[in-house]
Amino acid sequence: MRATYIYGAGDVRVIDAADPAIVQPTDALVQVTRACICGSDLHPYHSKAADPAGSSIGHELIGFVTEIGADVHSVVKGDFVIVPFAISCGVCEYCRAGLQTSCLNGGFWNDARIGTAGAQAEAVRVPLADGTLVKVPGVDPAIADEGLLASLLTLSDVYGTGWHAARRAGVTAGDTVAVIGDGAVGLLAVLSAKQLGAERIVLMGRHQARTDLGREFGATDVVPERGTEGIGRVLDLTDGGATKVLEAVGHMPAYEQAVGIVRPGGAIARVGVPQYDEGPIGWSFFGKNTTLTGGPAPARAYIELLLPAILDGTVNPGRVFDRTVGIDDVPVGYAAMDAREALKVMVKP
Amino acid sequence: MRATYIYGAGDVRVIDAADPAIVQPTDALVQVTRACICGSDLHPYHSKAADPAGSSIGHELIGFVTEIGADVHSVVKGDFVIVPFAISCGVCEYCRAGLQTSCLNGGFWNDARIGTAGAQAEAVRVPLADGTLVKVPGVDPAIADEGLLASLLTLSDVYGTGWHAARRAGVTAGDTVAVIGDGAVGLLAVLSAKQLGAERIVLMGRHQARTDLGREFGATDVVPERGTEGIGRVLDLTDGGATKVLEAVGHMPAYEQAVGIVRPGGAIARVGVPQYDEGPIGWSFFGKNTTLTGGPAPARAYIELLLPAILDGTVNPGRVFDRTVGIDDVPVGYAAMDAREALKVMVKP
Repeated sequence: MRATYIYGAGDVRVIDAADPAIVQPTDALVQVTRACICGSDLHPYHSKAADPAGSSIGHELIGFVTEIGADVHSVVKGDFVIVPFAISCGVCEYCRAGLQTSCLNGGFWNDARIGTAGAQAEAVRVPLADGTLVKVPGVDPAIADEGLLASLLTLSDVYGTGWHAARRAGVTAGDTVAVIGDGAVGLLAVLSAKQLGAERIVLMGRHQARTDLGREFGATDVVPERGTEGIGRVLDLTDGGATKVLEAVGHMPAYEQAVGIVRPGGAIARVGVPQYDEGPIGWSFFGKNTTLTGGPAPARAYIELLLPAILDGTVNPGRVFDRTVGIDDVPVGYAAMDAREALKVMVKP
Repeated sequence: MRATYIYGAGDVRVIDAADPAIVQPTDALVQVTRACICGSDLHPYHSKAADPAGSSIGHELIGFVTEIGADVHSVVKGDFVIVPFAISCGVCEYCRAGLQTSCLNGGFWNDARIGTAGAQAEAVRVPLADGTLVKVPGVDPAIADEGLLASLLTLSDVYGTGWHAARRAGVTAGDTVAVIGDGAVGLLAVLSAKQLGAERIVLMGRHQARTDLGREFGATDVVPERGTEGIGRVLDLTDGGATKVLEAVGHMPAYEQAVGIVRPGGAIARVGVPQYDEGPIGWSFFGKNTTLTGGPAPARAYIELLLPAILDGTVNPGRVFDRTVGIDDVPVGYAAMDAREALKVMVKP
């Protein structure tokens, strides 16, 4: 099969790789209907050291079950499934608590420890299939609307991640929320905050096509300024700060912005993987009783909750996709996202 | 009157200062019945640059109202009151939300901006008396039990601060809690966690007299080790980490310990003023969906809630006091706390 590998910064290639096979009786094989490129894939695309062996990449997909191991009971061959970005057993303490990204038996894609490869490929082996996969009933992707497929694909990561930010921050009716970042996760954090009843949603982002979509998702204000100027704008707009701040970038300036704009007693939820080890948590943070929360989103935990509004058309999170490439053009997709010519690129193998 | 001033590291003196006077119609004057020395007073005692002018110090007291301004309505001359460690108006957004340490109109003791001096003195001027003071009905300190006075005094700061840690971390029935620090706040965080229903309370501290009191307050385990060894002990004891960690120290090793022992999805509440600006909030923190919360405790918010169990003898938080000095011996009290010969020193002017 064709599969995507990264060999260093800026060096993504699609190669012929071995077809996946059942290894454990709890495995399933899934043929990829749609995959995509994530903002977090751009981190290694920017900084990965040259590696002649290469590493598989990609962690978001929807597809068909083509084979199941002897101990798989929740799906059968032919089922159309959403495959979240973490592998999880479904039965350990953390899975039961809805924190599947801390599963004691699972892991992530492209993880040698559990023998997973990447989702930007024609097929994948899914360990712990019963815990990981979510069947989508009543949808035949061969005839389904492209917009519906796009929205279903967001449940594998970005919609669940935006939702996680809003949930962990505790967004509730009447809140004033600020969202930092106009990437797919930031925009879906806006949508999530809106669904949870936020009254005012300030989106910090500077790409107008994206912030326009953010307004359609529920943003009431857009602040393109960054740094001290951006902080001042949000403090003015919110009369002293946002009660909940959703940080969907992962770089230090975004975190500093979050600390600057959070209201006393308020919460910051980060869902962009932090590209730093240390950050300000001294008096500027502590003095106003700030809460910092968030982490890798347990997308699996939210799929059943978020699916109905997608199926009935109430929400269209798939609008974050603005380009589609075939499997052999995945490197073109990376370049387009890196150059910010594309917001989020779908892969149609 | 006699009042305590600090002139630099290790240089605390009791001097003759001007008697306080009513400045604003919302002020009250309070004659100090008992004050005390706080663990946080040791920070300037360790590091304050030499300052020939000196600064008043102290922020915990109980006492009598001796005079009120024309606009004070909640207390009258002769009332016995608890004076919390922040001045608060009681009516702004933050006071109404129970976050009096962020009061828009208040401030702290020893704060030139609002003209407050220190509590380690014979008397104080209390701005915004209606919002700040809490009358204790039915207690005459002239004949009250010393233990009761000691417990009432803890409501001005350390008990409310320990309670704040437990509340902000969200301690609830059945939780496994770890408390870092066996100072007065740490021990009262143990008591608070117990009151909130924690099932297991691991106290990290190495001073046996203190940890013994911690056991009486509800600690089920004591871990004297620190650093990697201490983290390993707690992870073993709790089978993977504490769901709630209450950090009552304020130094970086305590924070690092907290990050090391918190369970995935768990919360760290800090109430020791951080003696650092930056700290680890990267993958080690983010990857397990840690929540970091806490801050300066709104002691005022908790007084009415915590008072009844003190008045009826259910709890005795005043047991954290193990030495009493007169006003002129305050410097001796500082030296004793600094040398860890005393856990917490009461001042009886």
